[in-house]
This record gives sequence, structure tokens and C-alpha cells, in this order.
Amino acid sequence: MITSSETLYENVATKIESLIEQGVLQPGDKVPSVRKVSIDHGVSLTTAFQAYFLLENKGLIESKPRSGFYVKFSKSKLPPTPSIIFPEHSSNEVKIDEMVSRVFKEARNEKNISLAVASPHHSLLPVAQLNKAVTQSMRKGKGKELGYEMPPGNEDLRRLIAKRSFDWGGHLHHDDVMITFGCMEALNLCLRAVAKPGDTIAIESPTYYGILQSIESLGMKALEIATHHETGVDLDDLSKALEANKVAACLFVTNFNNPLGCCMPEENKKKLVRLLAEKEIPLIEDDLYGDLFQGKKRPVNAKAFDKKGLVLLCSSFSKSLAPGYRVGWVVPGRFKERIERLKFMTTVATSTINQMALAHFLENGSYDRHLRKIRTAFQNQINFTTQAIIKYFPAETKISRPQGGFVLWIELPSTINSFELNEKAVKQGVSIAPGLIFSTQNKYSNFIRISCGLPWSEKIEQAIKKVGDLLKQQIGKLN
Amino acid sequence: MITSSETLYENVATKIESLIEQGVLQPGDKVPSVRKVSIDHGVSLTTAFQAYFLLENKGLIESKPRSGFYVKFSKSKLPPTPSIIFPEHSSNEVKIDEMVSRVFKEARNEKNISLAVASPHHSLLPVAQLNKAVTQSMRKGKGKELGYEMPPGNEDLRRLIAKRSFDWGGHLHHDDVMITFGCMEALNLCLRAVAKPGDTIAIESPTYYGILQSIESLGMKALEIATHHETGVDLDDLSKALEANKVAACLFVTNFNNPLGCCMPEENKKKLVRLLAEKEIPLIEDDLYGDLFQGKKRPVNAKAFDKKGLVLLCSSFSKSLAPGYRVGWVVPGRFKERIERLKFMTTVATSTINQMALAHFLENGSYDRHLRKIRTAFQNQINFTTQAIIKYFPAETKISRPQGGFVLWIELPSTINSFELNEKAVKQGVSIAPGLIFSTQNKYSNFIRISCGLPWSEKIEQAIKKVGDLLKQQIGKLN
Repeated sequence: MITSSETLYENVATKIESLIEQGVLQPGDKVPSVRKVSIDHGVSLTTAFQAYFLLENKGLIESKPRSGFYVKFSKSKLPPTPSIIFPEHSSNEVKIDEMVSRVFKEARNEKNISLAVASPHHSLLPVAQLNKAVTQSMRKGKGKELGYEMPPGNEDLRRLIAKRSFDWGGHLHHDDVMITFGCMEALNLCLRAVAKPGDTIAIESPTYYGILQSIESLGMKALEIATHHETGVDLDDLSKALEANKVAACLFVTNFNNPLGCCMPEENKKKLVRLLAEKEIPLIEDDLYGDLFQGKKRPVNAKAFDKKGLVLLCSSFSKSLAPGYRVGWVVPGRFKERIERLKFMTTVATSTINQMALAHFLENGSYDRHLRKIRTAFQNQINFTTQAIIKYFPAETKISRPQGGFVLWIELPSTINSFELNEKAVKQGVSIAPGLIFSTQNKYSNFIRISCGLPWSEKIEQAIKKVGDLLKQQIGKLN
Repeated sequence: MITSSETLYENVATKIESLIEQGVLQPGDKVPSVRKVSIDHGVSLTTAFQAYFLLENKGLIESKPRSGFYVKFSKSKLPPTPSIIFPEHSSNEVKIDEMVSRVFKEARNEKNISLAVASPHHSLLPVAQLNKAVTQSMRKGKGKELGYEMPPGNEDLRRLIAKRSFDWGGHLHHDDVMITFGCMEALNLCLRAVAKPGDTIAIESPTYYGILQSIESLGMKALEIATHHETGVDLDDLSKALEANKVAACLFVTNFNNPLGCCMPEENKKKLVRLLAEKEIPLIEDDLYGDLFQGKKRPVNAKAFDKKGLVLLCSSFSKSLAPGYRVGWVVPGRFKERIERLKFMTTVATSTINQMALAHFLENGSYDRHLRKIRTAFQNQINFTTQAIIKYFPAETKISRPQGGFVLWIELPSTINSFELNEKAVKQGVSIAPGLIFSTQNKYSNFIRISCGLPWSEKIEQAIKKVGDLLKQQIGKLN
């Protein structure tokens, strides 16, 4: 009975949400009364109330005392998205490590509210279930949980990851999968397998600073490609860049690029794979955020169109399940042997018990249920954060509309230096990620990334207000 | 009462063991009867029997039905140690990865008895206690066990590692320590911090193949230094090599080099540190086996004499406690900041729960108790393996006398190609590590390394016999 009534109130909520999204109901509009909903839809008053609480939790409506519910937020009424910057097609040495270290030294200080670090808060994770999976693995392990699990890694876990490939259009065998210490180790191994120091890697602009740091630490160069808010990498820009430069590999976050949150359409992924296959250029596909889609269905991966074994797919459980387990994987295609060896030489093997526990958790099928829950949580947190930015930041502020993941990319008035902004914010106990660390070309200095990984709270709203106040002060001074 | 009687029988056993070690009692000699021991030492018959069982467990005596106990094995009657080879002082490209992969593909096949892989069997590890430590950490963690534990890593664990530095002559602060994914990640990070592709690293000859693979994968070169069975690196040879070559760093296993099991005397470590400090050459000190000494006390580390922050100490819990946890550490000296950043770029952070559990285990003080136990087990396994090699291998065989760790380095008749020997042995279900993979100079082709990490059993004795039979066949053919 609970299940059917849940469906009922969700149904009602979805209808009203769609009216809001389409702009039929606009911010400030009163929504139909609970009584009216109850009568019109033939549901109980309780059900109607549940529907409205759900919408309130999503940050879409708010109740006003003695008056009823009003629309608070509509995606149809958002500020424009940040500008697309077409980067120069030059192969650049990367030198952002110093800056990133400076930013994150403070961002990781537990006293500060970190809007800089893109990590899900543990209250959003299935702690009890995972701990139970650890306990059960130890019971089952009979001592083997202390032994090495040599590359390619735990077979059960690899099989379960291969099984999930169906969701993104793949049909992997477990021997196609190798377990790594998170997506970061996977990306590092791939870079080392397909390129050498001095080689050029094509990346999105902007792109995750960790990718830039890896490229820097391996003595490789970066070539930035224009990337759109809706459709990701600009394929024409990529084509031109590949004509003008010798590129050893591309490293793209095809689903929900961090920081943009964009997703390449299926057709573009097909074209991308075809283009690179013609030129025999490997594609390292970072799919870290693929399961955290906001739409109706999980996007397909470029790997699904790979016929030559040239796509190296990387991902992990760090953004959705257990950051601290440090378990990720790579589907290395034709570079399998090389990557298995590099893994052994670098970290020998991935932690055994962590792999066992994740296999146990996935086997029970609770991962999909958890993913539904955490996607909703991220969506709600993005809604609330967006609203707070609109409310507290200067009017010219532009905000991304991520199609997945949980970060926002924000363009501030052009006079703002976001690196300095962060240093000021840190003094007030808040950290943000300045745009400069997402590129090699000294662009995005008036951009910031804000993570929505923390459950929404008054404290976070106040943190965003502090940043907004700093911005307004700075603009005031300049005018 | 139990404790005092334990001490009693151990005392008696130690006296007899010393008679055997000094050669007063020789293999084949009858040892005093249990009754005589009981009367002479004023102990009960039970205590006398316990003493003899202990010596039997150590492989030193054996009982003959209706006759009594006889000396079976004495270290005073061992074959000579393998030859020391003075390598050429040339900086070599490393190309052993292919060969190592071929060897260990088979060595890791669970159907084979692996005398090749140097890893403690899980029956030698404190499984129940570690599992309990995991459970307690999860209870205490309240969800934080799923979050990132950013570099430098878990503070409790770092403090406990710093505390243990007293054992090797150090006095570290926990901020001097950074947690890594095992010793292998620590070594890799150190190499990357102090040298770049093309640079030369001075290493021991022979040295652990994993170190050679790392150097190879990073595009660096290796310069081999002669290494003695008793005293480790030959400092004169090192001096000469440093005169003739530009060396970016030394990477030495100062305590119980794998495969030799040698230990540099304290005086040599002092000289080594002084020599390298004069030339401003960093020393990466691999202390993976330091806690697994066979003598009376733990050897001092070279790090203890480091005044300039030029010694980078690396170690882990993989050989003594929990290989599969993949938890090690580095004491990076003046390279701290660079190494912390490289760690973040490569694997972000070390697994949280694994660090918590080890901190919990160390806090309880059960580590030292466990170490005493596992050291005895390794010593016994080394004794039994040595005896079996003497029994089954050709008479010319030479065997190392490891002062710590749990591997044996064996020189076979010069006509033997140990790589081929291994391929033949694998067909019979046994794997060994051929000498060629421990050097870049195509030396040691008639050497093998045998691991004594598995509890002694009839099966292992038979495995050694199989290798011995293959050797004898091959020699027979050649003669």
C-alpha cells in the first residue's frame, strides 16, 4: 500500500514540476491549493501534501504562512549560461600544480565550508550497507581478505562492472575490466600507456584540474578544445586542432564534464570515435560522472562505438558510493597488457577487502536504488545552490545547467579575479574553486566552480551569501 | 605460571640451539636425552620435551623412533654463499618488464606452488585481530570511513608509525610521514620526486625486479653497485661508480635486500649517508623488510643519520601484516611537498578504512607480539627450505644466509639457465624467480630466488625436490 501511495504523490508532484519547468507556473505564482489538488486529482489530502513537500524538498516551491504554496524556482527562468571560450590551438606546458595546491590546502581545512571540493558528503552514502558488505566479505574471506588481489583485480567485481556496461550501450566481458585505485589512477595509467613525456594530450576547455595536474606531472603537454554547455567537445574545433597539432591522445569527460556538467550527444560520441579511429588516436574516456545523470536515462559512452580498441574507459565509485575506498576501473581496450603491467609497477594491486565489499554490495542490487536516491539529492542540492547564487551574487552572474554530476560553473563579472576572491573567502571560512585552475591558458579568471556535494543547509546558504557579499563589495569598489 | 614455564623451555631450547649453531653439536649427532635435560637443568620432563619440540619446529633436530633426538641442521654446516658479481659501472636502460610479466603470469596461477612470489601466507597473519580492527573502525567512523583521507593520510596511523621510528634510531614527528598505497607507491613517488626520465638511479646488484620495473616504466636508467651477502652495498664500488657517472639518486634496500637478505652495518649506513650528503644525492631507502630481522635487534635505518633531509625512507605493512591492505608510507625529508602533490595527482588518497584499521591494530600494541611470531615462522621456514635445497639440489649449489626477510638467493651450477628452469618447473606446477630479472646486466642467469613465505609442508618439500630433479636431469644431459 505504501508503494502505491508513493507512486501517487510522486505522480502529482511530477505534473506540477513539469508546469513549473515549462514556465506555465512562474516564480512567485501561487500553486493550486492542497484541497484543489486533492479534489482535481482524486487523491487524499495527505497525498496532496506529500506531493507539495516533495516539491519543497526539491527547492521548487515554498510555503508562506497562512497563504499556501508559491513557485520559488523554475529552470525556465535561469540566468544565461557562462561564455564558451575558444582556446588557442597551441600545445601548452601545464603549470597549475602550484596554484591547485594553494587552493586545496585551505579547501581541505575542516573548519572551512568547502564549496571547492567535489565530493559527496557521507550522509548521502549507504554507510550501513557498505559496512555490512565489509563485514560479510571478511567472514567469507577466511584470511584471503589480507592477501594480494593481483591485477586485473577481483573477478566478481569485474563481472559486476561488466554487467553494468549494458546501461551505457556496452557488452563487456570481465576480462575487459581492470580494477584501479579510483578513476585518477586509471587516468594516470592510461596516459602513461598511450603517451610519453613531451607528447600532447587534447583535453576539454575547461577541464578538471586533476587531469591537468596529471598531464603536468607526467611531463606531457595539453591542447585545449572548445567545449559547449549542452553538447560538450566542439568536434569542428577538435578537427581543426588535430590538423594543426600532433596529438598522442584525447582525454575527454564525455558525460558531465567537470566543471561544465555537459553531455556529448550520442551522435557526437559516434562521430568522435570515428574521427579518432581514422587517425589512430586513442581516446581516454573519463566516465566518472556517467551514473549521476539528471535526465531520464543514463547516457551512452563513446566506448560503446569503439571497434578498434582505441577507447580507454575510466571510472570509479568515488562520486557515487565510497570516495574513501579508492576503487575505480579501466577498460583499456588494446592497451590491456601494458596497463596491467604499469598498474603492478606503480601500486602492485588494489586493496583486496575494498574490492570484495563493493562486489558484495553490487551483487545485492542495492546500487541502482542508491543511485536513484543520490541523483535526486544532487538535483535538489543543485537547485538550492542555483537559487542562492541568483539571490546573493551580482546580477551579471551566469550559471551552468549541469545535465549530471553535482558541480556548477559560474561566470562572474569580467573584472573579478576569482583566485583572489577565493583567498578572501577562505578568510571568512568558505572555499571555492577558482576558474584559473581549469585551464592552461590563463583563461576563466572570472569563473568559479561550486560543488553541490554537501546536503543543503542554512550554513551553506550563508556561505554562498558570504561569497556574494565579497563579490558585491569588490564590484562596488571598482565602480 | 604458563608464562614462566614458557620462558623455561625457551631457555633450554636456546642453549641447545647455540650448541648446534656453534657446531659443537653437528648434524647427525645425538642430542642429550630428555631425561638428562630434565635432570641437568632441573626442569620437568614436560618442559624438556617442550624445548625439543620447539627445536624440531625450527627444523634443527629430528626425532628417530625408539632412539631419541638428533641434530638435523646447523648453520655452521651450510654450503658457501653465492658469488658476488661486480657489475659494470654503466648506466643502463632497463628492459626486464617483459620477462618479469612472463614469469609472474604463471607464478600467480593458484594451481601452481609459488616459490617465486615473496608474500607471507595469510595463515601467518593476524586475520581475526585485523578484521576486528576493521569492524571497530567502522563503528567509530560514523560514515567518515567512506570519505577521503587526503594526503598526508590518517593522523593516528602516522603518529603510530612515527612512534615506531624509535626502533630504528629515528625520532619522527607524524608530519614527517605520508601514507601511500604500499611501499611500491612510495618508491615510485620518490623516484618521480627526485629524478626525471633519462636520469640514472644507482641500485644494488642484484635488486628486487619491481624496483627495476619502476625505473624502466619511468624512463630512467639503472646503475648497478656490487652488494655483499653480509654487509650490503659495497661503498668503495659505489664511490667509484659515482665518480664515473652522474647519478640522480640511490635506491637501496639497506635492511635485508631482496633477494640477498643482507644488512648494511650501522657504520656503513653512516658512511653512506655522509658520502651522498657531500654530493647532494638523495637516498631512497627501502626498509620494507626492516622489521623482519633474524638477529637480536632491529637494525638502524640510514634515515637515522640524515641531517639534510636527503634520505627518503619507504616502507609498508605488506610483508608483515596485510599485503592486501596496500598501506605503506614514505618519510620524504625535504621532498615532502612535491611528494604529497604527486600522491594526490596519481591516486588522490590512500584508502580510508584500511588506514583506520591499521591505526586501531597498532594502537593496541599487538603488532610487536605478532612480529615476534612471524619472525620465528619465517626463520623456521628458511631453515626447512635451506635443508631441502641442500638435500635435493646438485652439490655445487650455493645458498644465501638471509639476516632478515624471507627469501633465499641461490647460485646454481654455471651451465644452468634459470629462466628455462622456471619454464620447465611451471609445467610441473612449481614456480621460482629466475636470477635474470634481478639485474639489468644479463647477469645471474644461473641464480634463482626462492621465497619462504609459505608455511612449511610436505607439498613444498616436494616442490623443491621437483626443481632439484630438473636441475640434476639438466646437468646429467650436459655432462
